[in-house]
Amino acid sequence: MEEVIYNKVTPQLIQEFKKIIPGKVHEKEEINEDYFHDEMPIYGKGIPEVVIEATNTEDIAAIVKLCFENNIPVIPRGAGTGLTGAAVALHGGVLIDMSKMNKILDYDMENFVVRVEPGVLLNTLAEDAKNQGLLYPPDPGEKFATLGGNVSTNAGGMRAVKYGCTRDYVRAMTVVLPTGEIIHLGASVSKTSTGYSLIHLMIGSEGTLGIITELTLKVIPAPKETISLIVPFENLKDCIGAVPKIFMAGLKPQALEFMEKEIVLSSERYLGKNVFPKEVEGVNIGAYLLITFDGDRMDLLEELSEQAAEVVLEEGAVDVLVADTPVKKKDAWEARSTFLEAIEAETKLLDECDVVVPVNQIPTYLSFVKSLEDQYDFAIKSFGHAGDGNLHIYACANEMEEEEFKRQVAEFMDIIYKKAAECGGLISGEHGIGSGKMEYLAAFAGETSMRLMKGIKEVFDPKMILNPGKICYKL
Amino acid sequence: MEEVIYNKVTPQLIQEFKKIIPGKVHEKEEINEDYFHDEMPIYGKGIPEVVIEATNTEDIAAIVKLCFENNIPVIPRGAGTGLTGAAVALHGGVLIDMSKMNKILDYDMENFVVRVEPGVLLNTLAEDAKNQGLLYPPDPGEKFATLGGNVSTNAGGMRAVKYGCTRDYVRAMTVVLPTGEIIHLGASVSKTSTGYSLIHLMIGSEGTLGIITELTLKVIPAPKETISLIVPFENLKDCIGAVPKIFMAGLKPQALEFMEKEIVLSSERYLGKNVFPKEVEGVNIGAYLLITFDGDRMDLLEELSEQAAEVVLEEGAVDVLVADTPVKKKDAWEARSTFLEAIEAETKLLDECDVVVPVNQIPTYLSFVKSLEDQYDFAIKSFGHAGDGNLHIYACANEMEEEEFKRQVAEFMDIIYKKAAECGGLISGEHGIGSGKMEYLAAFAGETSMRLMKGIKEVFDPKMILNPGKICYKL
Repeated sequence: MEEVIYNKVTPQLIQEFKKIIPGKVHEKEEINEDYFHDEMPIYGKGIPEVVIEATNTEDIAAIVKLCFENNIPVIPRGAGTGLTGAAVALHGGVLIDMSKMNKILDYDMENFVVRVEPGVLLNTLAEDAKNQGLLYPPDPGEKFATLGGNVSTNAGGMRAVKYGCTRDYVRAMTVVLPTGEIIHLGASVSKTSTGYSLIHLMIGSEGTLGIITELTLKVIPAPKETISLIVPFENLKDCIGAVPKIFMAGLKPQALEFMEKEIVLSSERYLGKNVFPKEVEGVNIGAYLLITFDGDRMDLLEELSEQAAEVVLEEGAVDVLVADTPVKKKDAWEARSTFLEAIEAETKLLDECDVVVPVNQIPTYLSFVKSLEDQYDFAIKSFGHAGDGNLHIYACANEMEEEEFKRQVAEFMDIIYKKAAECGGLISGEHGIGSGKMEYLAAFAGETSMRLMKGIKEVFDPKMILNPGKICYKL
Repeated sequence: MEEVIYNKVTPQLIQEFKKIIPGKVHEKEEINEDYFHDEMPIYGKGIPEVVIEATNTEDIAAIVKLCFENNIPVIPRGAGTGLTGAAVALHGGVLIDMSKMNKILDYDMENFVVRVEPGVLLNTLAEDAKNQGLLYPPDPGEKFATLGGNVSTNAGGMRAVKYGCTRDYVRAMTVVLPTGEIIHLGASVSKTSTGYSLIHLMIGSEGTLGIITELTLKVIPAPKETISLIVPFENLKDCIGAVPKIFMAGLKPQALEFMEKEIVLSSERYLGKNVFPKEVEGVNIGAYLLITFDGDRMDLLEELSEQAAEVVLEEGAVDVLVADTPVKKKDAWEARSTFLEAIEAETKLLDECDVVVPVNQIPTYLSFVKSLEDQYDFAIKSFGHAGDGNLHIYACANEMEEEEFKRQVAEFMDIIYKKAAECGGLISGEHGIGSGKMEYLAAFAGETSMRLMKGIKEVFDPKMILNPGKICYKL
């Protein structure tokens, strides 16, 4: 690989862009500062020279072709809700705002797929599918991310434990390659053994291999009923210990989240509501499971809940509270859904990790992480997906200088990423690598795997113009 | 890419191999002719210079490293049950018999995974998992394939409609790269967004990117009960038309197969049993659905069966027969499982395709295929997975010369592959590309996607030594 040298966007090129997409090419002070960062500004800002509102596949291909010919970086960006700096224009260039391509194109009710533009928000598809009697199963915490962004990070979310991740719902896509060529991958079918899986390579590639301009996603008939259980435990170890027993009993929860008391308190302060019990019959509660079952008949769900209650009580649960009314369910899940917002509201300096460890390693891993708290000036808060071992660990500080916070966090992260690997886990469960986690990925994956990733990047993007400085190539 | 020139295996190299794996290196007349082909010899035979029985990851790495240094082709082979010539030593070299690494290593009952060597047979794992109260959901028709082979073709099978394909059950793997380096991909977790998905690239790569030497596979608690329905229809169109209605009713069959009368007759001749009704109340039966539901309670399965019966009768089913005893279920599924054997027993010259089309395109597609029968001297037989659109179409001849058969089949295949693409389908649902389907893949995927696949192959295998002449690189 020769050294990469990017050119600046010239006034002449801007004129050419404007001919391709009139009225949607912005530069200089027309560019909103929101485009300079994602939800984790601590990983650095980047100022694009031009922002273009995406219109359609062909226009994007024409823009990218010009950038390819002129060695100009191109950065695709969805709703900017990422947590790793993946959509930030670190090397200037042209940022393409994919959130402007936001039409749900059509449902195919015989093959159970929906065709969408990549800028459709998760929440929009979720609501629209519901109106069709369908469920789009992936349910990441951030409902206002774009589906293109979800695919680009293989977003997971609450329902992954039963239904899998975004990857499992991508049937086909249209992609503009860094050369400006257009390819179509996949089909409205669930089986394929048709050459190397380029579609699975695109999924989770965070906008570094191609720009997704259309998606065909699997949907399923919506389950008619849900029921949720709040299960308080004295401590996290008992709480997590109950999880494999729930599966072994043949119960298949739609969602299975754990939360420690401290983060519940933080969320309840934020919402101004008291939802979870803090003491039951004299026992101080230290952790909770929040479990949802779905199905078509409430009587069967009630039976399932009873079976689940037996299992968790056997495993040391202090109580089982059934949230069977819309209000109770909403309260419980609203508390869970606002964890990140609650943390953000209380915190000036924030960094996070998103490791995933085998489910039975959660208590070991979290005890280790907490044992580090005394060594640092920031607070550590955590919650996560008990059903799949995906943990969100936040370093939070209000009184520290940013440089000192960054120094301490870097040391802390280094230690806890190594521990995740030791526990048989991975660097990221669902947030991705972006620019913020590159060194941890490199340390974890090792030289050989990184050489393969870099080689793949060069095959797709021989001039390194697409979303540079992310995942495997630090320029 | 420069021209690839392979060296012959020298006596000195054979001595070195024998030092690495004593007693398991075979050459010349010691090599059984079974190693020269897979189950579809029509795609050509290949004679390896050396056959080595696989022992462990490190030994294989040492062998491959020697071959890399000396430009010797290496071909990993499982049980040789493939249908596309993927495990055939087209350019000589060293064939590694992976079926000899056949230990089930351990179950992790808290994370619901099993660690296996790649040469374990599907049937062996299926039986062993059952004894643990677990189900390994993938259920390809060929039960005596190796798991490594299943992963290498992303094998699908009967239960894919409910549980997905082999891809969905691969959590982690150890791989020997064509350079002799060893990498570990994935973990015992279900979520990941940790860089480009090398593991998904390995899955379905038919032994061309690396040699899989260990697998960690997801298992699930076994459903306690199953019930099967045989549903006769007057014609295939009604039969397939009922399929989306079954899904839309929220019924989730474990398997949903269609079969035309002719293939049922062939199978019944082979088994010497009469299992499926041929005429019901004066109506001649033309096609059948065979449906299985699984779950933990027979009373609920019976309710599901009744709901399913209502749906299919509404859609034109002539009758619904319940196979609720072990014998009835065995008979029905045995008939289905022996379709290929039955065809093979009656046929001298055989070729097949394994396209997948959107479920609602099955009748259109099959009518088209049958309309071609008059133009050729071979017979056309078909069956397939109604739930996922994966069709197995066989060209069968007994009286033709092989050259003429091949000429006619090539023309026929070319037409029906194009039609599959027109119907929104793909070249292969589960059998893969191997050496037999390369030109159809190239025509279907197009130059740009093929350039990406070739580029990926070069990244993994810079000297093109691993399983040459398969998928995307004709040498």
